This record gives sequence, C-alpha cells and structure tokens, in this order.
Amino acid sequence: MESKSLTKNKTGKENTAIYSRACKVITGGVSRNTIFREPHPYYVSHAKGSYITDIKGVERIDFANNMASLIHGHAHPNITNAVTKQLKKGTAYTMGTESEVDFAELLINRSVGFEKIRFVNSGTEAVMTMIKASRAYTGKPKIAKAEGAYHGTYDYAEMSQTANPSNWGDINKPNTVPLVDGTPQGVVDDVVIFPFNDIERTLNILDQNADKIACVLIDPVPHRIGLFPASNQFIEAIYKWTRKNNAILAFDEVVTFRVNYGGAQDNYSVVPDLTAMGKIIGGGFPIGALAGKSEIMQVLNPRQAILKHPHSGTFSANPISTTAGRIAMEMFDENAILRLNELTKKAIYQIKESIKIADVPISITGDGSMFRLHFTETAPRLYREAYQPKQIKNIVTELLDYMFLKEHIIMINTCACMFATTLEQKEIDRLSQALLNGFRLIKPKLLR
Amino acid sequence: MESKSLTKNKTGKENTAIYSRACKVITGGVSRNTIFREPHPYYVSHAKGSYITDIKGVERIDFANNMASLIHGHAHPNITNAVTKQLKKGTAYTMGTESEVDFAELLINRSVGFEKIRFVNSGTEAVMTMIKASRAYTGKPKIAKAEGAYHGTYDYAEMSQTANPSNWGDINKPNTVPLVDGTPQGVVDDVVIFPFNDIERTLNILDQNADKIACVLIDPVPHRIGLFPASNQFIEAIYKWTRKNNAILAFDEVVTFRVNYGGAQDNYSVVPDLTAMGKIIGGGFPIGALAGKSEIMQVLNPRQAILKHPHSGTFSANPISTTAGRIAMEMFDENAILRLNELTKKAIYQIKESIKIADVPISITGDGSMFRLHFTETAPRLYREAYQPKQIKNIVTELLDYMFLKEHIIMINTCACMFATTLEQKEIDRLSQALLNGFRLIKPKLLR
Ligand SMILES: Cc1ncc(COP(=O)(O)O)c(C=O)c1O
Ligand SMILES: Cc1ncc(COP(=O)(O)O)c(C=O)c1O
Repeated sequence: MESKSLTKNKTGKENTAIYSRACKVITGGVSRNTIFREPHPYYVSHAKGSYITDIKGVERIDFANNMASLIHGHAHPNITNAVTKQLKKGTAYTMGTESEVDFAELLINRSVGFEKIRFVNSGTEAVMTMIKASRAYTGKPKIAKAEGAYHGTYDYAEMSQTANPSNWGDINKPNTVPLVDGTPQGVVDDVVIFPFNDIERTLNILDQNADKIACVLIDPVPHRIGLFPASNQFIEAIYKWTRKNNAILAFDEVVTFRVNYGGAQDNYSVVPDLTAMGKIIGGGFPIGALAGKSEIMQVLNPRQAILKHPHSGTFSANPISTTAGRIAMEMFDENAILRLNELTKKAIYQIKESIKIADVPISITGDGSMFRLHFTETAPRLYREAYQPKQIKNIVTELLDYMFLKEHIIMINTCACMFATTLEQKEIDRLSQALLNGFRLIKPKLLR
Repeated sequence: MESKSLTKNKTGKENTAIYSRACKVITGGVSRNTIFREPHPYYVSHAKGSYITDIKGVERIDFANNMASLIHGHAHPNITNAVTKQLKKGTAYTMGTESEVDFAELLINRSVGFEKIRFVNSGTEAVMTMIKASRAYTGKPKIAKAEGAYHGTYDYAEMSQTANPSNWGDINKPNTVPLVDGTPQGVVDDVVIFPFNDIERTLNILDQNADKIACVLIDPVPHRIGLFPASNQFIEAIYKWTRKNNAILAFDEVVTFRVNYGGAQDNYSVVPDLTAMGKIIGGGFPIGALAGKSEIMQVLNPRQAILKHPHSGTFSANPISTTAGRIAMEMFDENAILRLNELTKKAIYQIKESIKIADVPISITGDGSMFRLHFTETAPRLYREAYQPKQIKNIVTELLDYMFLKEHIIMINTCACMFATTLEQKEIDRLSQALLNGFRLIKPKLLR
C-alpha cells in the first residue's frame, strides 16, 4: 500500500522544509493550532473524496474532514462544478445575489426553529452574532455556557473551554476560567459556567443569575466536553428555565448540524430560539449562519426604525460559499443522512469489536456521523469525567501518530472521527483494523 | 446605453421578486446591511472586470468593488484560473498547505513591521485577534480607539462607531457609545475613545488610562471618520505614547493595505507593532490576517511552553483564499499600485472640475486608490466635522440612487470610491460626467 502510493504524486518537496520556511513567517508555523503536530505538520498535495495525498505522495484516509466541515469529503464534483461556474461570474459584490436567497430558503426549511436566517463567515462569527443578538433582544448582559465546551474564539464564548482540575473549582459553582491571558475581568464576570447534562446543578447556577442572563449557549453534542449528547431532560429543563426567565435558548450547531436533517435539535422535544451554524453548510468554503425566531432576529433588521444590532461583513453571504453550501446541503438529504449515520454506527460497532479483541479500557461516545474514543472502561457522561490528565493525553498522541504515520489514517486530535458521505465499508474496515493494531500498541501504557 | 445593455443578459427575473422571497427567509432580506437600499437591493447576474450586470441585464460600472475588497475587479482570469486548479485538489484540510506559506512569505516581505503573520477568515476576526493578542502580551484589559472608526463587529472594536451629537459628549473626553443594544457595561468600561488626528486631546485621554491600555487601535485612513489620513505627527505622538506606556500600536489596515506596497503604514515614520489585514489580500475570497512583531505574535505560538492565546479557525488559511490572495497580491506590485493611485488622482482632479462647474459646496478626501465626497465647502479634518446630519444623509442617498439607477454607476454608500486596477480612463470620464449631472440634480437641496 505504502510503496504504491509513494510512487505517484511525489513533489520532490519535504514536509520539514516547508515547515521550516513556515516557521520563519508564521507564528508557530501554522495559522490553525489544530493542524499542528510534533515535530511538524504535514502538507497536502491534493485530496479527492475520502483521501488526502501529502506532498511526499503518501495517501491517507481522512476521517477528520477539516474538523467536521466537509460532509461530502474533498473536491466533490458537483460542488467543484457549481463553484467553477460561479467563479467566472465573480465572487463578491456590493449587491445581492439570488444564491443567498436560494440557500436561505433551503436551510430555513430544515428546522421548525428556523424562521429567519443571516449568513456570516465562520462559526466564530455566528456564535458572536448569536450572543450579541441575544443581548440586544433581552437587554441583559450575561451568557451561560457549559464548562469545557468549544464555541470558537469570541472571548465570551471561550470561557472555561479548557478548565482543568487546578482551576475549575466547585462543581456546584464552577469558576469562569479565561482562556486567553489578559481577558478583561468584565468578560469573566459576564459568563456563567454550568456543568453540561447536570440538571439540578445547572438550574441552581442559572437561578443565581436569573435576571442577568441573555442566553444559555449550548452545543447539543459538545465535542470537547466528550461528544455525548445532551439529554432531552437537560435541554427541556433549560428550555423551561429560559421561558420563565426571559432568556434565549441558543444552540451552537456549528458541528452538530450534521447529526440530522434539521441538526441535533431534531432530537429534542423543544426548539431552540436561535441556532448558530457553520462548517458543513459551507460546502468546503468559509461560512457561518445564524437562524431562529423572526421576532428575535428582528434586532438585526436594517428596516426597523430602531436597529438594535447593526451588522455587516465584507464576505458574508458571498456567492461562492452560498453556492457550494447549497449544493452540499441539497445532496445531504434525508437519505444521505440515514446512510451516513448507519455507516457510522457500523464503524462504532466494529471499533467496539476491536476494543474487545485488544481487551483495552477504551469506550466510545458519539451521535449521528460523529464519534470519539475515551480511554476509560466506561464512557464518560460529564466533562469532568471525560477530562484527560496529561499521561492519557500522551497516550492519545501516540495512538494518533501511529494512525497517521503508520496506518495512514487521519483522525481529529481528540481521537474523534467526523464522517463524510464519501466513506464506504472498505474505509471502515481499514479504520477498525488500524485501531485494533493501535490499541495493541498502546495497551501496555494504558494498563500501567 | 441602457437599451443596449437591457437587450442582453435578461434572466426573466425581477429584483423585487427575489427581494420579496429574501424577506421571507432572511432578516431584512439581506445578510449585509451594506448592500441594502430602499426599496430593495439589486441582484447580480454576473460581473467581469469593472462591470457588474444585474439580473435585468443592466450593466453598471463598479467603483465599490465589494466594499474595497476587489483590487483587480471581478473574475480576474489569473485568479479564476488558479482557484479553479486548486478547487480540484480540495478546499480545506486538517493538514497544512504550502499555499499558506507562499502567501505568508509574500506578505511578510511587504512591510518591515511584518515579522510574523497568521491568517483568519475576516477583517472582524483579524481585529478581534489583534486586540486579544495585545491584551495577552501586555496583560492589560483596555483598548483605545478613535471615535467614529469602523473596525468590524467585535464589540470592543465597534464602540462609538456611530457616535452622534446626542451621545458623543465632551470632545475632551468622548463618551464610549455602545453600538449594539445590551452591550455589557464591561465592554463600555474597557474602551477608551479618542478624537482622531487631535494630538493634544488624544494624549490627554490616553494618559488618563495609561496603566490599563493594551493597545491603541488605529485605522490610518478611516473611511467612516471621513477618509482622511492620520497625520504623521499624530501617529508619531501615539507611537511615542505607546513606547512610554508599554502599550501596542495596532493598525487596522483591512481597507488601507491598498494604499501602498506595505499598506498605509509606509507613509509614516514609525512602524506599528501589529497590523490587521483583510479585504484585498483575499483576492475576492474571505480572509483576514494579523501580522507584526515576532515577540508579540509569540503569544499565539502553540509551541510555547505556556500558550497565552490559544487560537484556531476551521477555514483559516484555507488554500482557496491563500491561493487567490497570493495571485492578487503578486499582481498588485509597486507598478500596479503607482498606476492605480495615479488614476485615482486623475479621477479626483476630474471630479473637482465637476464640482467647480456645478458650483456646489462639495469637497473630497482620500488616499491612495480611495476617495470620499463630503457635502461641505471645505474638506473635514475631524470626525465631528465630517459627521453628516440627517438632511445631508438624505441628499447623499438621492445622489447615490441617481448614480446607481440612472447613470449605472456603483459607489459605496458613504459616497466613496475604492478603485480597482481594471479601471481605465473611460470609466473615470463616465464617473466625473455622471457626478456632474448628479451634482446639478442635488444642488438646489444642498444650497437650501
Ligand atoms: C461547536 C463549535 N462552535 C463554533 C466553532 C467555531 O467555528 P469556526 O472555526 O468556523 O470559527 C467551532 C469550530 O470548531 C465549533 O466546533
Ligand atoms: C477598517 C475595517 N476594519 C475591519 C473591517 C471588518 O472586515 P470584515 O468585513 O471582513 O469583517 C472592515 C470592513 O469593512 C473595515 O473597513
């Protein structure tokens, strides 16, 4: 396998050489810390479907899909063709395009919670706009978010993202832990942290800030917390709390929109007021979107006599992202989702077999087309349970390096997979076999 | 002219019909308030070079260039070809690309102030990251910014963006005026507002917050303030202040990078510590970048033992934006800039002739390839001088509507033009003649 792929596509370039050039001009040599690996990242020559070939000609199966953002793998011909056509007509104007409207109609129809929508350029911008819109609508300054959840790089959304035992404090009232040095105290004071899926504690904490909370921000299947779904009771309890306290239930579905036709929100008995999206809805191009109740979205309406939340963005709703996104989401219909989620279940089943055969204390969580491995006998149900101490993180890195370098398989750096519709049984077989080999490799360290 | 263009490119669609569909699904019918116009925006069929054709077949000359972001006009073949090639290789990966490195090298070489760079997805993200990096480096919480300056949608950066006589307060200590309803008091408290180009007052205001200011954020030719350049004395004075007070001089060159080979910063005797970029450096695709001193940029370095500012972004440095951006910036070399800035000077000269002939109290400010019309006899030199009361804004709208609908000329909604290299003398002649007609139309109202 290796020799075959090594013979084609060689560029005569070295990953180390490019990285050493990169380090001279880019801080840390990367613009995204997610692609960094020790001692250097690897550079892509080209990619197609589920496969990425690096500049050395090594072909790898991609289970990361640019951090869950490519729902149809790489360079899907339908998307490439549509974008190529649009390219010739221009990529951005100080005028409207029908493409934005077509795409808005498509997305609006996917969830009863989506009455109106607006596009932005990233998940970060979508979450930021959702928080600002929540404040504008309620007139209240605080937000509540779950300990450990990742929501992009807006300060308010990133509090306690990497909270750890040395700073997270009492579970009954978790500390608000800043991520970036120099974060203003005002940000810390205006973010309330709750323990995901812990109804009683969460309600208690929310109650203590009842008159100040503009929105409760929730990723329904938060990757960094542990990639297990919020329980229906948890979402219902928060929903009821927000009704009673004039607050907004704000879903971050930047990752989880892939879980169902209308996102992970389809799985709950209540409907969020606002939803942030991104990743897969761009069809491989930069995008973000905010959708939700008309009445709340009105704060963004430039036709209102008093515009509570003026908002623009140079590349927002550009016709490349909206065209690629529309094609991608049209193809990601109910059948495609069903098939993809079934394939993922199959993969989880096979990996559980590998775990059994290797006889290692590893568990799996996930939802829809996503899963994550945990290095504990039983699957964690809470962030503080899923939190990995340094020695486990080192073992994870060893496994990921083995998978990447020896098995030519790309996973997300938390040991997670986010599937694309281009995957088939043969790639699943490769994955479960490779993981079996990997599990055997790390087993002695895991049991120490 | 109209009948000729009307005969081709008709799509059988109506702008009003698309907009009424848009209003059902998009708040206000637009994702960007900049493209909104009463009673409805116009929708693009296709664009090429300096011309945009709408869905009714009406062809217009574009002097807005997607809010200053298209330095080579629409669908430049070199960019289209390079992007088409990259498309087939994929648009985003959880791995590196040489394209990011090539582009970083190109940009780094353009200003002595750029020792290291990192890419993000928009000007908004670039400014946000610049502010967060400044806080992380200095450990201080506040920023200072100019009254009236636009820096994207990050709350801290948008304070006093639309300050007006009813709320701006004493010029010696301008109020920090929130833009969005429900902005937390913490944000208001942590933003210090100064009057652009007013050295004495600005230094006084900065001094009052000396121990708390992480960075002084400055757009060197701020469009919304009035599109006149910061004086060298002003920038020097602030530079000296930041040296003395351990603060960062942070330039927002999202728009002004077009002014010179190394941005508007080439025009000053001192060098900013950090620079945010966006718009033209994306070659028509979503982008942002933060460049500056290595030592400061280090806060973003994932290889540091203590990472002060963890940072990522799903689409940051994607190979489409970096490829298009690199091609665009390669073509925007010293000769191209010289020619473009000369053409802009020529245009300003001709428009001044139109002003003289029409005998109207209109003035022009600008720099490099940008200019803006003001409806005062003498050009404003300060934000509060440039501020337009409602009756002037209505006249501006009337002029812009006349230009767009009757003369088929697209300007930015402040009555500004941001040129592209595709423009030639014949479009300049059209512009100055059309403006002459427009000036005559609004003259009675202007003199009232
Ligand atoms: C749940 C969630 N929200 C928001 C974001 C931010 O999206 P982006 O990287 O496009 O800014 C991410 C990115 O990984 C995410 O996983
Ligand atoms: C000076 C300045 N800074 C920042 C921005 C924000 O850039 P973006 O619209 O790409 O978020 C803009 C956009 O117009 C700008 O003009």
